[in-house]
Amino acid sequence: MADHPTDVSTAAAGPGPASPTGRATGLRPLGLDAVRLDPAGLLGRWQLRNATATLPHCVRQLDESGALDNLRRAIGEVDGAHVGMRFSDSDVYKTLEAAAWQLGRDPGDHAAREFIRSTSALLARAQEADGYLNSYVQSDPSRSRWEDLEEGHELYCAGHLIQAAVAVVRAGAGSDLLAVAGRAADLAVEVFGAGGRDAVCGHPEIETALVELYRATGRQRYLDLAKRFVDLRGQGLLGENERFGRAYFQDEVPVRSATEVTGHAVRQLYLLAGVVDVAVETGDQQLLDAAERLWESAFQTKTYLTGGQGSRHWGESFGDPYELPPDRAYAETCAAIASFQWNWRLLLATGARRYADEMERALYNAIAVAVSADGESFFYSNPLQLRTGHDGSHEDAPSQRLSWYSCACCPPNLARLIASLQSYVATEDAGGTQLHLYSAGSVRTSHGQIDVDTRYPWQGHLRLTVRSTRSEPWTLALRVPGWCTAVTVSVDGEPVDPATVDRAMAEGYLRLTRSWQGSSTVIVDLPMPVRLVGAHPKVDAVRGCVALVRGPIVHSIEQADLPPESCLEDVALDVSAPITVTDSGEGTLVPVTVTAQGLLPTAAGSSELYGAYPVPPAPLTRLRLVAIPYFLWGNREPGPMRVWIPTVPAPSTTGTPLSESKEKS
Amino acid sequence: MADHPTDVSTAAAGPGPASPTGRATGLRPLGLDAVRLDPAGLLGRWQLRNATATLPHCVRQLDESGALDNLRRAIGEVDGAHVGMRFSDSDVYKTLEAAAWQLGRDPGDHAAREFIRSTSALLARAQEADGYLNSYVQSDPSRSRWEDLEEGHELYCAGHLIQAAVAVVRAGAGSDLLAVAGRAADLAVEVFGAGGRDAVCGHPEIETALVELYRATGRQRYLDLAKRFVDLRGQGLLGENERFGRAYFQDEVPVRSATEVTGHAVRQLYLLAGVVDVAVETGDQQLLDAAERLWESAFQTKTYLTGGQGSRHWGESFGDPYELPPDRAYAETCAAIASFQWNWRLLLATGARRYADEMERALYNAIAVAVSADGESFFYSNPLQLRTGHDGSHEDAPSQRLSWYSCACCPPNLARLIASLQSYVATEDAGGTQLHLYSAGSVRTSHGQIDVDTRYPWQGHLRLTVRSTRSEPWTLALRVPGWCTAVTVSVDGEPVDPATVDRAMAEGYLRLTRSWQGSSTVIVDLPMPVRLVGAHPKVDAVRGCVALVRGPIVHSIEQADLPPESCLEDVALDVSAPITVTDSGEGTLVPVTVTAQGLLPTAAGSSELYGAYPVPPAPLTRLRLVAIPYFLWGNREPGPMRVWIPTVPAPSTTGTPLSESKEKS
Repeated sequence: MADHPTDVSTAAAGPGPASPTGRATGLRPLGLDAVRLDPAGLLGRWQLRNATATLPHCVRQLDESGALDNLRRAIGEVDGAHVGMRFSDSDVYKTLEAAAWQLGRDPGDHAAREFIRSTSALLARAQEADGYLNSYVQSDPSRSRWEDLEEGHELYCAGHLIQAAVAVVRAGAGSDLLAVAGRAADLAVEVFGAGGRDAVCGHPEIETALVELYRATGRQRYLDLAKRFVDLRGQGLLGENERFGRAYFQDEVPVRSATEVTGHAVRQLYLLAGVVDVAVETGDQQLLDAAERLWESAFQTKTYLTGGQGSRHWGESFGDPYELPPDRAYAETCAAIASFQWNWRLLLATGARRYADEMERALYNAIAVAVSADGESFFYSNPLQLRTGHDGSHEDAPSQRLSWYSCACCPPNLARLIASLQSYVATEDAGGTQLHLYSAGSVRTSHGQIDVDTRYPWQGHLRLTVRSTRSEPWTLALRVPGWCTAVTVSVDGEPVDPATVDRAMAEGYLRLTRSWQGSSTVIVDLPMPVRLVGAHPKVDAVRGCVALVRGPIVHSIEQADLPPESCLEDVALDVSAPITVTDSGEGTLVPVTVTAQGLLPTAAGSSELYGAYPVPPAPLTRLRLVAIPYFLWGNREPGPMRVWIPTVPAPSTTGTPLSESKEKS
Repeated sequence: MADHPTDVSTAAAGPGPASPTGRATGLRPLGLDAVRLDPAGLLGRWQLRNATATLPHCVRQLDESGALDNLRRAIGEVDGAHVGMRFSDSDVYKTLEAAAWQLGRDPGDHAAREFIRSTSALLARAQEADGYLNSYVQSDPSRSRWEDLEEGHELYCAGHLIQAAVAVVRAGAGSDLLAVAGRAADLAVEVFGAGGRDAVCGHPEIETALVELYRATGRQRYLDLAKRFVDLRGQGLLGENERFGRAYFQDEVPVRSATEVTGHAVRQLYLLAGVVDVAVETGDQQLLDAAERLWESAFQTKTYLTGGQGSRHWGESFGDPYELPPDRAYAETCAAIASFQWNWRLLLATGARRYADEMERALYNAIAVAVSADGESFFYSNPLQLRTGHDGSHEDAPSQRLSWYSCACCPPNLARLIASLQSYVATEDAGGTQLHLYSAGSVRTSHGQIDVDTRYPWQGHLRLTVRSTRSEPWTLALRVPGWCTAVTVSVDGEPVDPATVDRAMAEGYLRLTRSWQGSSTVIVDLPMPVRLVGAHPKVDAVRGCVALVRGPIVHSIEQADLPPESCLEDVALDVSAPITVTDSGEGTLVPVTVTAQGLLPTAAGSSELYGAYPVPPAPLTRLRLVAIPYFLWGNREPGPMRVWIPTVPAPSTTGTPLSESKEKS
């Protein structure tokens, strides 16, 4: 490829986020315009809401928060001191990236195009001659470049600039921003490349960005720098972090020898996305193995049922294995997004279902919950429980979604993810096409077109119309989610043979290999009974509790659905009672509700905090217990919520049968 | 009383910490030399260890950490910049206070006397002419007085200076330091007194100190300023705390209208100690009511089984009601000490047992655990669980006690408490003498002398020899701890009548009123079976778990007592099996151990973090489960620990009887 950014072709829509070059093996992402998500489906509706509400809201907030003015300030167009976080530029970049993906799915979005144009021009003006661009440093002559790599976030911001520029190019919206990003990247290569300073940024992000820039430009030096950053990290090049320790920024152990995800969750996860990118582009199996090993640490010991990660507010960190408190879950929105991105890269590299499963889990729960129904307020932290009496006065753990944050990393991160959501739905390789996520819409690959008619995730029925002009056989691979214990499939009315289905249950993908020439109808049923889910016994924080999960969707109970005089913390679930599902159809805030049998004490119990065990059972009264999708909580009225519900009776135990106390009530 | 500090009589030993004037109603503390704790008993041994190990260690650390040099720096005796926390002076003051109490119990401790002498002289030199004394501000001309009341800790430090000076006077060790403290207090009166600046310190502490200074000097202005600080707090005079909110320093709601303990636990608790002090000296019932109301918030919803308080590392705060995670318990040592001090003041004011109960709970658990067996290393945070795989690399949550901390508030706080421990054992009033805490030793009051022969808290048998020259009757009141469900008492071999015992069980004190002239023997038996304790159902974090408690002592299980190949997190407790107690006598690290029936899975379970509920029961094998006093954990080898143990079987439930799976193993 040519070396000058303006030579890069920007005419047609390119691929979405994380698009490995041909050098990488594995699945290939599709072009931005290859998948259309229908607004009749949930993912399509999210994209529409993102386009009409979230993204415009973010653009407004960039003005109101002063993030754009910070850039103007750096070049004297606006007076006054830099405001907000020192990485406020990254809010601008992530919003730019969101606008680019939005333009990729809707080239007619003039507001997005105009935002990209004007902001790219501002950035070009603000950039110094040698490529340096950081409003926090530039706006105050007493500040020096790269003087605080631990907390300065300069390379982190450069990374987001690069990702935005790559998105703009892939969306076919010109290469002006890529020129800016290329100059910033070239400066990073000059300062930190081989022979330069041995250093890393306190907040990983530029690693994955540099690989993406390599992919967009073909310039090896960006890949080399990304690999260099990956390899330099973990050697203690960053200073000691007095408050949180060196693990905070993953500078304690090199990733190749690490066995546990540690420290600041978003930093760890962005790093791991970059690690996979470097691994697949350099064919570095050791590095890919490290990423898969750390995936097991993350998903077998340090992930919430919602896909959220990061158990501690303190240091925004992963915490110890099995330390997963629902009430104090930090589960930062950005961490869930980073996890989604990391899993996407591992899915492309390996094709293994477990990565798509975790994308889906995070998407419908930890990510989706972060946006209000109207798309204009957000959670930063995504706990699985909010207590009666919670002090929500501080944005660290508010009682409701807020319209913006002093540290505004999450909202534009949501915007960029949702704007590019169609990119994550399907892939292809030489053998065929793979569908990973299901929502109403259509998928076009080199093998053919697949129209998806479904109300997934509300119902597990999929009707796929496959059209192909190819006579030679290819494989349509359909993900059977890990939560699914039975599946039925037919093609043009003919049931698929049991051996294929059995293999699908074991391997995770239903592989239908045939000539698809013409038009075929594939019917898939993924039954969605409500599942009572328990946690590993080592997860102390939710012992004796269950969660109600249906399909990919975790449910929660809210004070809003209880009798006014009752207290959510008093509610228990009768696990032996039947559970029903009510599908109200589209067009309602909560399309599908789950109703279980709850139990409430009929009298106030002791106010003693500790007492003789066992606590005498209270007489209980039955209660219709309505659970709604966790991601929809907090959209009606503020109040307590919980995902994990105490059970009555507990399993595998002896004692007084519950029915005795129930019948007293 | 005279107005000049040097006029204060310092010849004889005065009272201990928190000594209300005659104006206050309630119980009166005894003189420092009125109680002797025998080193054969646990409290006496702690005092001896404190005198020979902890206090000398703290004195050494003041040198090594640079805290003393900071004061020398302030007046140019040493070069260089101030080191450590900006409130490092308070480490010096608390150590001074500890040395004073130590001198009060052992006037022959020349090292303590010399430390007080030389350090008082240094402070007198360092103090500015108008009374200002703060090494952080004085050591750098660019810093100004009182410019950052939120975080500057200047009045906090002044408070600890005052407390140290009061202790020195009460110990009969001269009034040089009181002169320094009086000048500092007079400056505070000038700047912040009525007509001066309306402001409060971000960290309460000076309130209780000023009342104590009023008690030691009789100067009304100190009491007035204390009351003023109490009344000004909660009006938002402090700036917004960006990270933790205004509740962080209790500046959100005035204490008179507050209904919940909130924010930074130590700040809240020091404030409440001062609130009680002001209330009793001014006869302000509304203020005392507020303290008792907040006590209920604290002890009914926000206190660990160990008496520890402060559930969050983030903001070192109390957290929401019932938010009591054992693993992430912050439970700062200083908070437990502050709680002890607050309860002591409430006990003096009201005579109610519940306050003595909480003193005892904190003392034997949350406070005692903070010191290593050798007295020279300390916990700052006192969790009730340490997990396998815990990252203890950071002092925020270390895996073992540390010899000192960058924020060194806790070790000298322990030293001052333990040095004055005898002061908290007994009180008197016009009607008689009250014994609140039991340990081998002797108590002398105006009514007579009581020699206490007991191995409490290891055994509940007390033999009291009461000697009195008074012929008129007086009441010997003996606390019956709240954990005690039966008590037997005899005087000179005659059982005490059942009505008196019944009243004692209800009221909390066994009141024996008679003429005690001559010598009498009182035998009390407080039976100490091992109690299985459960938490209120709203304490989600320990659902399905029990704790093993005996007398006032909470127990814990440690990896050190398990077979090497086993994992502490796999252990469950068979609550239906017998529990035995082994008393190895004194002279061993763990005099009394509790042995219960544990259960361990015989095979590794699923590594899945979440799965179908209920998780199939694993075959279990029996295990001798040794529990030791929680306060002694971490004295053998580092490793996992837990107080709350999962139960098998759980109570009041149905299902497969446990015995089936047990018999498989």
